[in-house]
Amino acid sequence: MDVFAAIEDRRSVKKFDPAHVMTEEEISRLMEAVALTPTSFNIQNYRFVVITDPDSKQKMRDAGWNQAQFTDCSALVVICGDRQAYAKDPARYWANVDPNTREAIVGMIEGYYGTRPEARRDENLRSGSMAAMTLMLAAKAMGYDTCPMVGFDFDAAAGIIELDPEHDIIMAVAVGMALEPARERSGRVPLDELVHRDRFGA
Amino acid sequence: MDVFAAIEDRRSVKKFDPAHVMTEEEISRLMEAVALTPTSFNIQNYRFVVITDPDSKQKMRDAGWNQAQFTDCSALVVICGDRQAYAKDPARYWANVDPNTREAIVGMIEGYYGTRPEARRDENLRSGSMAAMTLMLAAKAMGYDTCPMVGFDFDAAAGIIELDPEHDIIMAVAVGMALEPARERSGRVPLDELVHRDRFGA
Repeated sequence: MDVFAAIEDRRSVKKFDPAHVMTEEEISRLMEAVALTPTSFNIQNYRFVVITDPDSKQKMRDAGWNQAQFTDCSALVVICGDRQAYAKDPARYWANVDPNTREAIVGMIEGYYGTRPEARRDENLRSGSMAAMTLMLAAKAMGYDTCPMVGFDFDAAAGIIELDPEHDIIMAVAVGMALEPARERSGRVPLDELVHRDRFGA
Repeated sequence: MDVFAAIEDRRSVKKFDPAHVMTEEEISRLMEAVALTPTSFNIQNYRFVVITDPDSKQKMRDAGWNQAQFTDCSALVVICGDRQAYAKDPARYWANVDPNTREAIVGMIEGYYGTRPEARRDENLRSGSMAAMTLMLAAKAMGYDTCPMVGFDFDAAAGIIELDPEHDIIMAVAVGMALEPARERSGRVPLDELVHRDRFGA
């Protein structure tokens, strides 16, 4: 599927076919694409919990104001970030460069994140959100639709997925087979309010 | 360009042709696609400052440890977020739905963001980072390459682009014509460390 077509046709879908099952091959293909999302210093700090188990989906729905997408989707991908990714053998993130470059970059990684816990969380939000966008576009190209979601109790969700406390939940994306087309776009801000030239306000 | 090809071929490029100029039509096409990136409650809280002016690019390079991408790219897109977007006539974000639905959603928007300043900043990070990913893939499909960047002084950058203080800088993306292919991927984390099933650790 063409990139611009995917960007234009991607819409947040609320009604999925609850009977549809994604194959393991489809889930693998999707997540392999998502793992190509760039990260700062290549620390690959995103983590993904792909929920297909009906009980877990129901618990997420209970934590998400009973929104039907949680259970009717085929896969609910909870996107997380590891605040300690920067420190988990960072040399491996630069395994394929010469040793001097590797050593220099590892030093920069430790310098940047080592003393700034807030930067670790921000990076989780950046990497996880970029990954969410890759996921939505790749799913669209595979014939699926998606719904990005922040409307759930993050603490409850962390309990449901048994998330390690060094991690943050960023958002979730429901992936499934749409039962009906999305409605008209609900209201767009004019482009000249969003896009400025050279300086803000221009 | 195929979505999966764009995801696989997108790499962070450091060497751009400084003589290449993007046309206004190309910049518009790119930013129109970026503005289709989803946002929570459709608040469209991302803002973009597209820098093509050489003096501004040089100032950004000075604020970014002299990295050549800042000046050699054709367009440097500084991605920002408006912490007040949620409160700026939110009914327009839902103009195309029935009045009762619109009123209900506007109430939810005010309820969610009105008392939680930290949620406004998090949403800026989410929306802006998703937009960055759309930008990188759309640029790739247009024959351009990109480099996502956080390695610059955000406070200095805010001054350069004269950013309104109610806004956050999220990151920047350099867009240009690559002068040489990207190197081999520098080191990838195994997929089974990134992707878990139903619960974290599984």
